[in-house]
Amino acid sequence: MPEPLSRLMAELTRLPGIGPRGAERIAFHLLRTPEIEVMRLVDALRDVKENLRPCSQCYNLTDADPCPICGDERRDHGLIVVVEQPKDVMLLEQTGLIRGVYHVLMGHLAPLDGVDPSDLTIDALLRRIRKGQAREVLLATNPTVEGDATALYIHSVLQPLGTSVTRLARGLAVGSEVEYASKAMLEAAITGRVPL
Amino acid sequence: MPEPLSRLMAELTRLPGIGPRGAERIAFHLLRTPEIEVMRLVDALRDVKENLRPCSQCYNLTDADPCPICGDERRDHGLIVVVEQPKDVMLLEQTGLIRGVYHVLMGHLAPLDGVDPSDLTIDALLRRIRKGQAREVLLATNPTVEGDATALYIHSVLQPLGTSVTRLARGLAVGSEVEYASKAMLEAAITGRVPL
Repeated sequence: MPEPLSRLMAELTRLPGIGPRGAERIAFHLLRTPEIEVMRLVDALRDVKENLRPCSQCYNLTDADPCPICGDERRDHGLIVVVEQPKDVMLLEQTGLIRGVYHVLMGHLAPLDGVDPSDLTIDALLRRIRKGQAREVLLATNPTVEGDATALYIHSVLQPLGTSVTRLARGLAVGSEVEYASKAMLEAAITGRVPL
Repeated sequence: MPEPLSRLMAELTRLPGIGPRGAERIAFHLLRTPEIEVMRLVDALRDVKENLRPCSQCYNLTDADPCPICGDERRDHGLIVVVEQPKDVMLLEQTGLIRGVYHVLMGHLAPLDGVDPSDLTIDALLRRIRKGQAREVLLATNPTVEGDATALYIHSVLQPLGTSVTRLARGLAVGSEVEYASKAMLEAAITGRVPL
């Protein structure tokens, strides 16, 4: 196999969800694809790395600064939704239920992997809250050990500031069955039960 | 979603085997990937389009001309194996059973799609045989309607040259069961039966 082709296949195999067979299929597809179309993919890849930068306010990835959400005066800047990664912003936006703004932590606390608070954007979050009019901070970290630890830590550092801190509800997954719920899910659903 | 990101996802979705969810997963993975690694993929893509060219003898894609196979004096240049596409060369090479050289047609005859003999590299094959020492031409086109039509056409234009023309055996797929063989496969196996 010519070296450029095997190198392309090796690079493709590093992408998530692409195995050796998939990489081979894509590589041979690209061989047959007109150069101009491959260059469109090349440009899109380069563009994402060169032109997407963290928003100076919320750290969401954006090609404008401030990002369209932080720059939108019609949004409720008194509600800051704290998420782990840019993708979470997009998913929450798709619900259409968040009228506030966001803050992207760029990860979660993981002391064993050497990720401590200074590796996240927690200091920037504190600065935003100190100088701003934040009424409520909604913690939307993942319902995992790391996400919960991160939420608890942020809660502890926010307490002196007097801002109200909430977090996403957890319980039974909508559309699931009680029969198949995990013990942790049932515990969350029981502890967090609400009046009908 | 920022425009560079949605554009990257659109381009990724055009690749075979990558749907909208896969494209999203890869795009967000690339967001987190260091720029230098994404640039390695970009370079590999560009390299394949810029540096792989058809070999002037066999039309296999190569970064050297003649390709390593055509340039290898230890190979049997008296046996030309005719295949539809570069990938077929690679698969046949992996068997280690071909000691001859190749000729890549770059497709198969498909009159309804407007692919006629002049769109394939058949003229170049004839020139190679006329000026060379080809003893045998082994047709390794696909066992499909189009592949068979292409093989028959090549056979007809080669006949005046007096070169021996063979084609790959067909019959039961090794490891399969007679019970599940298609009618066409059984017919090929019966017609082509060989003494034990």
